[in-house]
Amino acid sequence: LEAICAAHGLTPAEFAALREHAHAAKASAYCPYSGFRVGAALLTASASASASASTGEIVRGANVENASYPVTTCAERVALGTAVVAGHRAFRAVAVATDVSPPASPCGMCRQSIREFCDLTVPIIMFDKDSNFVVMTLDELLPLSFGPESLGVPGPPKAA
Amino acid sequence: LEAICAAHGLTPAEFAALREHAHAAKASAYCPYSGFRVGAALLTASASASASASTGEIVRGANVENASYPVTTCAERVALGTAVVAGHRAFRAVAVATDVSPPASPCGMCRQSIREFCDLTVPIIMFDKDSNFVVMTLDELLPLSFGPESLGVPGPPKAA
Amino acid sequence: LEAICAAHGLTPAEFAALREHAHAAKASAYCPYSGFRVGAALLTASASASASASTGEIVRGANVENASYPVTTCAERVALGTAVVAGHRAFRAVAVATDVSPPASPCGMCRQSIREFCDLTVPIIMFDKDSNFVVMTLDELLPLSFGPESLGVPGPPKAA
Amino acid sequence: LEAICAAHGLTPAEFAALREHAHAAKASAYCPYSGFRVGAALLTASASASASASTGEIVRGANVENASYPVTTCAERVALGTAVVAGHRAFRAVAVATDVSPPASPCGMCRQSIREFCDLTVPIIMFDKDSNFVVMTLDELLPLSFGPESLGVPGPPKAA
Ligand SMILES: [Zn+2]
Ligand SMILES: [Zn+2]
Ligand SMILES: [Zn+2]
Ligand SMILES: [Zn+2]
Repeated sequence: LEAICAAHGLTPAEFAALREHAHAAKASAYCPYSGFRVGAALLTASASASASASTGEIVRGANVENASYPVTTCAERVALGTAVVAGHRAFRAVAVATDVSPPASPCGMCRQSIREFCDLTVPIIMFDKDSNFVVMTLDELLPLSFGPESLGVPGPPKAA
Repeated sequence: LEAICAAHGLTPAEFAALREHAHAAKASAYCPYSGFRVGAALLTASASASASASTGEIVRGANVENASYPVTTCAERVALGTAVVAGHRAFRAVAVATDVSPPASPCGMCRQSIREFCDLTVPIIMFDKDSNFVVMTLDELLPLSFGPESLGVPGPPKAA
Repeated sequence: LEAICAAHGLTPAEFAALREHAHAAKASAYCPYSGFRVGAALLTASASASASASTGEIVRGANVENASYPVTTCAERVALGTAVVAGHRAFRAVAVATDVSPPASPCGMCRQSIREFCDLTVPIIMFDKDSNFVVMTLDELLPLSFGPESLGVPGPPKAA
Repeated sequence: LEAICAAHGLTPAEFAALREHAHAAKASAYCPYSGFRVGAALLTASASASASASTGEIVRGANVENASYPVTTCAERVALGTAVVAGHRAFRAVAVATDVSPPASPCGMCRQSIREFCDLTVPIIMFDKDSNFVVMTLDELLPLSFGPESLGVPGPPKAA
């Protein structure tokens, strides 16, 4: 675990915090249609739109479903939305947790949402119900990705 | 204004808080593609999934766009996601604010998202750039709506 | 029925065609998650992006779900996508059919998608399982709507 | 080119047809907001929900945008919707074409939509404005993907 943390620029305490928050976030999921709870946790980095947004914070998300299925927002996007509104524009790690095993991965739509705000090297940590996990970078989960620069738009400020 | 507040079960202070938070939330919008900032504010009601979620709170949202346009999350849905993760499951009012005039209304997708958690009588307050506003109930903005009960699902707990 | 058709600028034959196609389209739905089949049918108008797109055609749609619920495309949006690719840019009527009663209405997201290409007076006909129906105009189903002109964009060409 | 086609189970004629249709489909894009035209083409396989859906057909799509950006449907999902309504449930190849270089890839949301109906070995061919291309399999573009089996749902019938 220490080697994995080091490889991805995380401390063991940060890794543990991501794990605890991603699991805890599942309890707030609203998923009467799928019955499939997902929790997410983001570790914030220094780039921000707001002086009050500090680095090293954890922001939680959970899936919020809708009777019209496409109106559902996944856990990862709920977390990103909450974080952006709090002034965050960059992240050092993303974690997701579910009640299944092996661990579920972010859907393609969420990988795309993460792409907007994260460097390609950011680790995405996927926890199964027993906290066994798989880590992959964003670039591994969404290779050859399409982002702001593809449209000639600057996108968010980059983390220092 | 007092008559409007009374008609919708709001105090003037609650109305003012919704207005201030909806406008302030615009500053956190991430909208490099449209350049169209939207702020949202929700007034929480008593039904909740969590003992720690208190009533009468304001929860903010702002639009979070993506290079892949359909991956965008509107301000109203960001606010709902944040609120649901904080344990809220019912709301007494929804406010949105933009930089245009006349006031912009929630898109159809957001009206649907509000439908999941709000009674049909909930007021949706739309502020223009100068805080002129229009108020309509959810039922007026999304008549004959499709919701949890259409699928035979209980949906969220109802506000007391 | 003749009075209703006349009020909305449809012939009884066009109304019958919309009903038959909307019901028939349900058979092509891919909905293993909700089990809720929806069929849609559009009646094309004269504005088009293509010389080969003729008026008075019926274009079908059905819901196409996804294991990631928000990646689902509803019947109405599938029909619109198919029609736009065939060169159509304006429509005289929209019909939806389901297997329930009373008739289900388009979700808010689909009302918004219809808004992009239809005049506010366009009738939206909702058929229940026995072809009982309710008709409402787009403006009735999505009042105070947000459209291309709200962003200062011309939108599609208008029907002659 | 012949080697690439052979590696992915396509004939040179099929490859050429995918290229021509993906480029031609761009002309039907409705994209007043991004100005970024995308065309898509699918090569159908044998599994189907309908006796009339034949194999080896090409189905086209193009992006259909909306004033509410998240209501946009990308080219790939428009093509999938059209194909599913025509009775197709499996595909041998996906092609996308844009007006930029290097070639743009499907967004994460579209990769997820393709995942629902395609084997992981299906080639996704990305053409730039001059028909230079990159080919990657679905598994390469969306590794560790989340699909119907993750939810214990059978999903579509598999191609023979
Ligand atoms: Zn997702
Ligand atoms: Zn919206
Ligand atoms: Zn819909
Ligand atoms: Zn896409």
